[in-house]
Amino acid sequence: MALTAIHYTFSQEANSARKSLIRELMAKAVDPTIISFAAGLPAGELLPVAELQECVSAVLARDGARALQYSPQWRPLREWIAEHMRGRGVVCTVDNIFITNGSQQGLTILSRLFLDSGEPAVIETATFTGIHLITGGRGALVRGIPTDLQTGADMMALEKAFAERPRPRLAVLIPDFHNPLGVSMTDANRQRAAQLSNDYEVPLIEDDPYSLLRFTGQPKRPIKAYDESGTVFYLGSFSKMLAPGLRLGWIVAPAELIPKITTLREAIDLESSTLIQRAVMEFLSRGLLEPHLARLNAENGRRCFALLDALDQYMSDYASWTQPDGGLFIWATLPPNMDTLALLQEAIAEKVVYIPGIAFTDGNNHHNALRLNFSNLAPQQIYEGIARLDSVIRRHL
Amino acid sequence: MALTAIHYTFSQEANSARKSLIRELMAKAVDPTIISFAAGLPAGELLPVAELQECVSAVLARDGARALQYSPQWRPLREWIAEHMRGRGVVCTVDNIFITNGSQQGLTILSRLFLDSGEPAVIETATFTGIHLITGGRGALVRGIPTDLQTGADMMALEKAFAERPRPRLAVLIPDFHNPLGVSMTDANRQRAAQLSNDYEVPLIEDDPYSLLRFTGQPKRPIKAYDESGTVFYLGSFSKMLAPGLRLGWIVAPAELIPKITTLREAIDLESSTLIQRAVMEFLSRGLLEPHLARLNAENGRRCFALLDALDQYMSDYASWTQPDGGLFIWATLPPNMDTLALLQEAIAEKVVYIPGIAFTDGNNHHNALRLNFSNLAPQQIYEGIARLDSVIRRHL
Repeated sequence: MALTAIHYTFSQEANSARKSLIRELMAKAVDPTIISFAAGLPAGELLPVAELQECVSAVLARDGARALQYSPQWRPLREWIAEHMRGRGVVCTVDNIFITNGSQQGLTILSRLFLDSGEPAVIETATFTGIHLITGGRGALVRGIPTDLQTGADMMALEKAFAERPRPRLAVLIPDFHNPLGVSMTDANRQRAAQLSNDYEVPLIEDDPYSLLRFTGQPKRPIKAYDESGTVFYLGSFSKMLAPGLRLGWIVAPAELIPKITTLREAIDLESSTLIQRAVMEFLSRGLLEPHLARLNAENGRRCFALLDALDQYMSDYASWTQPDGGLFIWATLPPNMDTLALLQEAIAEKVVYIPGIAFTDGNNHHNALRLNFSNLAPQQIYEGIARLDSVIRRHL
Repeated sequence: MALTAIHYTFSQEANSARKSLIRELMAKAVDPTIISFAAGLPAGELLPVAELQECVSAVLARDGARALQYSPQWRPLREWIAEHMRGRGVVCTVDNIFITNGSQQGLTILSRLFLDSGEPAVIETATFTGIHLITGGRGALVRGIPTDLQTGADMMALEKAFAERPRPRLAVLIPDFHNPLGVSMTDANRQRAAQLSNDYEVPLIEDDPYSLLRFTGQPKRPIKAYDESGTVFYLGSFSKMLAPGLRLGWIVAPAELIPKITTLREAIDLESSTLIQRAVMEFLSRGLLEPHLARLNAENGRRCFALLDALDQYMSDYASWTQPDGGLFIWATLPPNMDTLALLQEAIAEKVVYIPGIAFTDGNNHHNALRLNFSNLAPQQIYEGIARLDSVIRRHL
């Protein structure tokens, strides 16, 4: 196709869309001898492949074509999710559950429900790139709030952002094992976040793909458990606790909003795969999740402690880092004069990669920080990788 | 949750979203003795359940965790699609193919690429409800064009809509076995549509979920095959030719636009299911598509002819209808004084349902038309259903 003469007129959304820095960086790091702390997924060897294979086969053998047709949201799965959420302290029934293709689609749907171009939205200054894509895509005016590396999102800043006029149309927080920060919000902060959302009537999205990946300490109730008036929207996901390639997650929302959510979702891609919904339900009803999580979290914990120990051995004289109780990530902060984006080229040459902090910001913050994944590396690789990274950093101290 | 006191501020998109008339109507028609001409999917008994079961198992046995992780778009599948499209006369390579969750997601992505609120978009006056959802969702100013029931979308009207200022930011046509009209565009009209899109530089989306469902006549080249400058965007889907519950489709677009499409799609739901992509590729590489389509189309043809014959027997003195060469639908037109939406209540009482024409419009057209699906009913049911429907209509003639 000869395209030279064509002038495409793009939408404002398309013109303002930022390319994924992570995606571009990782495209350069395909050498298999590179030790990668850049991943954001569970370790392949820990995925329940055989179990899922059995579940898909069982579903197709039993349900036949019903597992391959269009279908409404699969009610048994919604019922399982409702019970699971009740077990975490959330008052809800099946009528509050809406199935999505992962929590990113939940972010999309809720941003389309509440956000208009030019209207304010509150997000953490350092947060998951998919959240920046959503606020950017809707043309929101972003009010960033800081996140304390011990206690999670700053509630004073949240209240200030909520009190400002015009009122924000939406806020997004990650309460458990924050991506990229690895920190979890305290119980008091969760309660406070729900209360502020209720008081100011600002819809608060609680993005929670990680909470079941806890390897130490007691589970915390989600922000949604403190919601007294239906302004908190919980997003769950099977990506990290089961398998990313399934693309399945859910929204917990007031029942009265589910029809609007359904219509918005229908416009996006009609519905979720019937086969995947039923296969995951089969996995859950066979009681396979709990043993899978036990195995996964034990190993994740082992890897996290290896990373913490390696950081302690190599970097304790110049860096600090978060101490996660679960999830996939540790956030390390180097001296203020360091630029982790610039360092990355050198790191790739030394066959080690990570995600620079700036990738999780609006481009103006956390230039001296980096995100380290521990779930995808054996402890031996973790020590070797941190040794390599330390040697790169020390050249610039 | 006590929700009484909360006032939600919705986005413009959410406020203007129309609930699906089809979904609401069908919710009322759950009685299994109802004969339904309302469906829009292949017959369950014709889906390749056992073959897909084998393919999923084979993929998990061979690829293991790689079939369950995040992954880039699955290149072998993109290569298969590129070859398939070349076989239909489209000049393209793997670099032009982008995998989606069905063609509805392709509509979403392309509308986000080109459309801004208040800008014009051209669609057919009677068209697939998902297309109305897209233009509505983006707040587009819709310019409707009529569709001739013999030759497809009206090219004079298309040129007029393209020539008007401001220029449309997008147009959408359904060339083969139109939903809901059952008509196919002539070769001359396809060529003309591509030329108009090229000349006026208006991006033209060719929504084509049906073309492989041909049971009579020679396949036609898609509009995209006549595209000389990269302004035509082709949407394909595995939903109708393989199984709706897989949720898989594709976009054919200029390679230079794929990065923007990737970024927009990442914001929506990151990516398509790795497992589903690989399972479908397994199905295709085993050569199972052709025999499946041969069987499916032979049966669809038999059912379509039964419906045409039943219409001829019962309704020839007052109605007219389209004569599709494939796809899933026939469009019937009753005398101008008839209101098929009002009639539907009576039809449900007589245990027969269809989709009123108005469901496919902006709400102001085709009140005397109806869409009849033939793919989901055995011939005997088709004759009985049309007999019931005729008895309802005759009360009002």
